[in-house]
Amino acid sequence: MRWNAWGSAESATTLPQPIKDLLGQVLGISGEPISAPTALEVQLSPSRLTSTDVAELESIVGPVGTADGDRLIRSGGKSTLDLFRRRQPHQDAPDAVVAPATSEQIAELLRWCADRSIAVVPFGGGTSVVGGLDPEAGGLRGVLSVDLRNFDQLVSIDPVSGQATLGAGVTGPRAEELLGAHGFSLGHFPQSFRFATIGGFAATRSSGQASAGHGRFDDMVTGMRVVTPTGVLDLGGAPKTAAGPDLRQLFLGSEGTLGIITEVTLRVRATAPITLHEAWHFPDFITGAAALRAVAQQGGGPTVMRLSDEAETAVNLTSPGKIGATDDTASGGALAITTFEGTGPVAQARQELAAAVLTDAGGRSLGAPRGQAWEHGRFDAPYLRDALLDVGVGCETLETATTWSNLTALKDAVTTALTDAIATSGSPALVLCHISHTYPTGASLYFTVVYKCSDDPIVQWQAAKAAASEAIVAGGGTITHHHAVGADHRPWVAAEIGDVGVRILRAVKDALDPTGILNPGKLIP
Amino acid sequence: MRWNAWGSAESATTLPQPIKDLLGQVLGISGEPISAPTALEVQLSPSRLTSTDVAELESIVGPVGTADGDRLIRSGGKSTLDLFRRRQPHQDAPDAVVAPATSEQIAELLRWCADRSIAVVPFGGGTSVVGGLDPEAGGLRGVLSVDLRNFDQLVSIDPVSGQATLGAGVTGPRAEELLGAHGFSLGHFPQSFRFATIGGFAATRSSGQASAGHGRFDDMVTGMRVVTPTGVLDLGGAPKTAAGPDLRQLFLGSEGTLGIITEVTLRVRATAPITLHEAWHFPDFITGAAALRAVAQQGGGPTVMRLSDEAETAVNLTSPGKIGATDDTASGGALAITTFEGTGPVAQARQELAAAVLTDAGGRSLGAPRGQAWEHGRFDAPYLRDALLDVGVGCETLETATTWSNLTALKDAVTTALTDAIATSGSPALVLCHISHTYPTGASLYFTVVYKCSDDPIVQWQAAKAAASEAIVAGGGTITHHHAVGADHRPWVAAEIGDVGVRILRAVKDALDPTGILNPGKLIP
Repeated sequence: MRWNAWGSAESATTLPQPIKDLLGQVLGISGEPISAPTALEVQLSPSRLTSTDVAELESIVGPVGTADGDRLIRSGGKSTLDLFRRRQPHQDAPDAVVAPATSEQIAELLRWCADRSIAVVPFGGGTSVVGGLDPEAGGLRGVLSVDLRNFDQLVSIDPVSGQATLGAGVTGPRAEELLGAHGFSLGHFPQSFRFATIGGFAATRSSGQASAGHGRFDDMVTGMRVVTPTGVLDLGGAPKTAAGPDLRQLFLGSEGTLGIITEVTLRVRATAPITLHEAWHFPDFITGAAALRAVAQQGGGPTVMRLSDEAETAVNLTSPGKIGATDDTASGGALAITTFEGTGPVAQARQELAAAVLTDAGGRSLGAPRGQAWEHGRFDAPYLRDALLDVGVGCETLETATTWSNLTALKDAVTTALTDAIATSGSPALVLCHISHTYPTGASLYFTVVYKCSDDPIVQWQAAKAAASEAIVAGGGTITHHHAVGADHRPWVAAEIGDVGVRILRAVKDALDPTGILNPGKLIP
Repeated sequence: MRWNAWGSAESATTLPQPIKDLLGQVLGISGEPISAPTALEVQLSPSRLTSTDVAELESIVGPVGTADGDRLIRSGGKSTLDLFRRRQPHQDAPDAVVAPATSEQIAELLRWCADRSIAVVPFGGGTSVVGGLDPEAGGLRGVLSVDLRNFDQLVSIDPVSGQATLGAGVTGPRAEELLGAHGFSLGHFPQSFRFATIGGFAATRSSGQASAGHGRFDDMVTGMRVVTPTGVLDLGGAPKTAAGPDLRQLFLGSEGTLGIITEVTLRVRATAPITLHEAWHFPDFITGAAALRAVAQQGGGPTVMRLSDEAETAVNLTSPGKIGATDDTASGGALAITTFEGTGPVAQARQELAAAVLTDAGGRSLGAPRGQAWEHGRFDAPYLRDALLDVGVGCETLETATTWSNLTALKDAVTTALTDAIATSGSPALVLCHISHTYPTGASLYFTVVYKCSDDPIVQWQAAKAAASEAIVAGGGTITHHHAVGADHRPWVAAEIGDVGVRILRAVKDALDPTGILNPGKLIP
């Protein structure tokens, strides 16, 4: 992962000519790159750790990274706000980086941090888009980035039960590789898949592009090991239980504020022999949404099911390589994608049941190729954002979820809020939206916003983000469906769970982390 | 619900002759009824509330029941232990019974109870089988039973989203009736269905006989209102969220110890036009379990799927009307039941996919009638228990869940523990078992034990239950898959969630219920 952009340098892209033309027409963008500092030009706040601190840390976890290079790469996540910050001459960073190798080392490390008043920010793939990695000390003496990269093992696999335990630092592709060697797949494919980790998926309550079929990450977790400053939890074992509250659900989504997740036990599936792709055209988003709803409420359907609105369909965002190119088959309407997995008869039967519902609801099959094209390019959109930022075009995504009956009202409210807020900053806004996840009672809405950066792009985006968040809360949506809370959504948590809910989180935090070392300033208001 | 037996008097049954014969042969039971006190003969501990207490309570919630009849019916649940206790001359009971009608009244009531040191036991259908209703004061001045029967409304329904809000006191049949009027069904059918309530399902993390298709109750809950002594929580709204820990999962299974659930928002489904039943014969339990596992791991399958072991199949427990009658079609093997719901094509397609898997795995279809017979009698087994207890035959059930790979080892260990413990008390034990719920990673095991009561049947069963619980914990099962914790499983909670887990529950309880009035002695060690 690059320090100031998404992913790897080899995969970086430039803007296709149709997009350049579009940006020139709509936003008046020249296409000239704007200036940004190199890693060597950035001035990092100096490390506040003493040589005694470093020596003591080394005795617990081995090498301690205090070099600017180690610290800069872990100074934030990959939101557009993060990337704007990476373009500034002076930047904050954690005071040091360590990479423990065992739960016991983490337990000792946390006791040391509590004793020495040092905050801890757990670090997995570094892909947070909600400020979850901000190096905030929370009034303590310093900030330590705890990199989980050494928790990179398949700890165990139970092929009969379809269950495996993976280290928290295992990345998405590595998980598929480790499980694939045994004939299994996890099937969790968020856009961050190539870099994000098992521990990060759990800590942020992640949801993947195949969650319609494989379930959200919180559905997949059957057990976990969590190390807190005051003890270790080993949760789970039985597939389901009625033995009181489900404590796994307290640590799923805990974002490093209650403990460090070191191992996760997961339901895995035999690798599907067949995947069937299909794309669908609907006359408009509302018709398409009703069709997806019918499939979701019928149950037992697709592995992937998503629907782009008219604007997103028009710019062809489902095929990043062809963005901006016209595509007659879907013009003037809304494009949906479905995939089905399983053995031949199972995948076929599911596809046929869903296809009947989608057709009845006004859909027209566009066949397999458009669906395959989507799958091929599905992890690449963030690279396009970097190319946009390089020429002064702001691009960010945000998401929510609500009930089916409230979906279009919420979509309209958020679109209006974003458009108005960006207009106030002096730019038109292109707001695209798709349904990324469906459930029997509702769906998620995933927005992409493109606009011309102002002279202070951080303030500009913070205002737009606040407007969208207020619209989400007022409109009955959740402040986040799958990006998590971090620092960025924290101001709206009390609106979501109420004062009593906040009091519960604080009580659990006080019990587990009485000195408040764990990821200050995130999640819990 | 009768005070000293299951259900209603009209549905009470007597022992069929084949069972009487069997009991005579195996246990040496004469069939003579044993003596038990009538309600009027029972001496209840006197109410500890003062007339000032009663007057103050009346000003908050209206009529306060202090008569013995009001108190006796709410003095416990319906475990065999409860029923043994109801046969004793002296009994404990709550000091009074109130039936508030609004969340606001409950909030005021809880503040009053906290102020006056009175414990509160929430009461729904009264069907707890784990001591969840024991009138324990926990060192306080008295115990108030808070009956939720006035929360009996369909608060709202959103037909587009397939979501409805029901009052906590709505019973299973009433929920189906209220929703059915709008063309919807909840689909939650635990054995307690006819009496248990929506609030009880939520508070105990209930699981129904159709949970394979409709999901466990915790899967159905999208929102809830909970009144605590220190504030009200309104949780949920969006179908799914990544906004931190899922606090609904703290109150699901909280068993009245953290707050009183007054409303529950639930995913509901359009009433299925078609239900297809099928029974299957397997040569033995292990073969049948492997077949069910294959269907569960394929996904998207049956609404109901269960498998009796050889012993349970032999006594024909799936057809209470025919218990003890021989049935050649299934003799010497293990009987499974499946049902499939949906529109015609959906139910048909699902049944065909599952049937192919079950056949491949060694199953032989017995057709629809045996499956229909099971559905017809599925809520009646508890009446049979009463008839057994009346002639001095102990009969109780207990359950657990574990991974597929551990299933038969755990089944054997629990069977041995029960058999040995009952033998020590001087009786042979008939131990029957079935898989009641299946998941991709594992399944539940539901045991029925029949034996001859000793002179002290309470001590006798407590010893057997402890032996079974120890075997479950040592064997890697959960202490309860769907009966909840109550007082009876509380000694094994720390083994399940660890010391840190217990500390979390206590921290939440201290934050919400600082005076400890809520259901003392249940769930939290």
